[in-house]
Amino acid sequence: MAVHWMLIEIGAPFETVLVDLASGGQQTAAYRRLNPAGRVPTLVVDGSAHGESAALLMLLAERHPEAALMPAPGSADRATWLEIMIQLANTLLPAMRDWFYADTDGEPIGADAVRSLARRRIETAWDHLDRRLSSSQSHLVSDRLSTADFLAIMLMRWARNMPRPATTWPNLSAYIERVTQRPSFIEVNRREGLANWPMSLDLPEQDGR
Amino acid sequence: MAVHWMLIEIGAPFETVLVDLASGGQQTAAYRRLNPAGRVPTLVVDGSAHGESAALLMLLAERHPEAALMPAPGSADRATWLEIMIQLANTLLPAMRDWFYADTDGEPIGADAVRSLARRRIETAWDHLDRRLSSSQSHLVSDRLSTADFLAIMLMRWARNMPRPATTWPNLSAYIERVTQRPSFIEVNRREGLANWPMSLDLPEQDGR
Ligand SMILES: N[C@@H](CCC(=O)N[C@@H](CS)C(=O)NCC(=O)O)C(=O)O
Ligand SMILES: N[C@@H](CCC(=O)N[C@@H](CS)C(=O)NCC(=O)O)C(=O)O
Repeated sequence: MAVHWMLIEIGAPFETVLVDLASGGQQTAAYRRLNPAGRVPTLVVDGSAHGESAALLMLLAERHPEAALMPAPGSADRATWLEIMIQLANTLLPAMRDWFYADTDGEPIGADAVRSLARRRIETAWDHLDRRLSSSQSHLVSDRLSTADFLAIMLMRWARNMPRPATTWPNLSAYIERVTQRPSFIEVNRREGLANWPMSLDLPEQDGR
Repeated sequence: MAVHWMLIEIGAPFETVLVDLASGGQQTAAYRRLNPAGRVPTLVVDGSAHGESAALLMLLAERHPEAALMPAPGSADRATWLEIMIQLANTLLPAMRDWFYADTDGEPIGADAVRSLARRRIETAWDHLDRRLSSSQSHLVSDRLSTADFLAIMLMRWARNMPRPATTWPNLSAYIERVTQRPSFIEVNRREGLANWPMSLDLPEQDGR
């Protein structure tokens, strides 16, 4: 979702191909040639395939400086942007992986322990981000939309059926309301057939994510 | 270690301050003002403090283009470099955290399950990196030293007392031998008082990492 959303926001031409996780589309030999780990998403750019959503967002930001979705190298916010991108990628993303895949990535017998640690880490991360957004700044990196917001909003959406959804943190809730008003967010939801967040419509969805 | 090592490799002037983890130096109010999560490392640059080793390596690389420790934006290897940096940051780093901190980050009763999944993920990551290095390339991103090598070598060193150390993978072993010959690696070991890897001297060390 994050990469697809950012491509729509940029307005760059692209083509999407659905990898149907429910039927194991990520395991086919053809897909594994593009993405050896068998994970989505993959972006093919200049004829080469690459994975890792956080890396793809950063790559797109630097290939499309006109969209201004990252602080320029050398600018005052650059270090903060790098730090937040890495923090989202190495704290929330792996904890979400644990939350959703504990049974199959590890032994089923240990899954509860893995999920319980994942939940603790995810909630601690919401605490940190909520504190960060309390200082009247409108986006994760200062007052401008950046790649960090695409990644963070996707992660917050994933948490919507967790015991404490991100929307229960006051500053996160206001941030989510603000960022999800963007036409590009509404459009990516329309294209991917997702429409139940952040509005509490509680439409059933296939995979819980 | 990775950031310290890279600073030495670049030859930039810097000052180090020891944060003594054994005595809780990372928990003091003064340190937490610099690094709210209470983690090492922290780099203070242009008067602002930032964390996350992977982000700091990327920041230093772009502030020191003369050291050529990343493929330039727009170059052919750029997407691969971003992908590998994120992969190391969101696969190996969090799994190492689980391996070393399962008892205190989570409930002690679940620690074995968390460590067992961590070990599986770490070994899968070594498999991937070993395959990557099999194609006669000398470094993680093509044939040039980059920030990815500082991060990867640090992680491989951390694994030295694990059931299957990284040195037991043939291509990783050759890679480790090659990269750790660098004067900057020898120097960072000297300055940090670490000397037992990759040579199998088995000197005891304080914290196992
Ligand atoms: N670090 C990767 C994680 C990718 C990931 O775990 N994707 C999930 C879907 S959200 C996936 O591919 N699941 C299918 C599977 O693991 O078989 C990224 O951010 O791109
Ligand atoms: N993602 C962070 C991880 C930092 C981290 O976990 N550091 C460990 C030492 S290797 C630490 O600060 N441990 C002390 C503690 O957690 O109290 C980074 O790469 O900088």
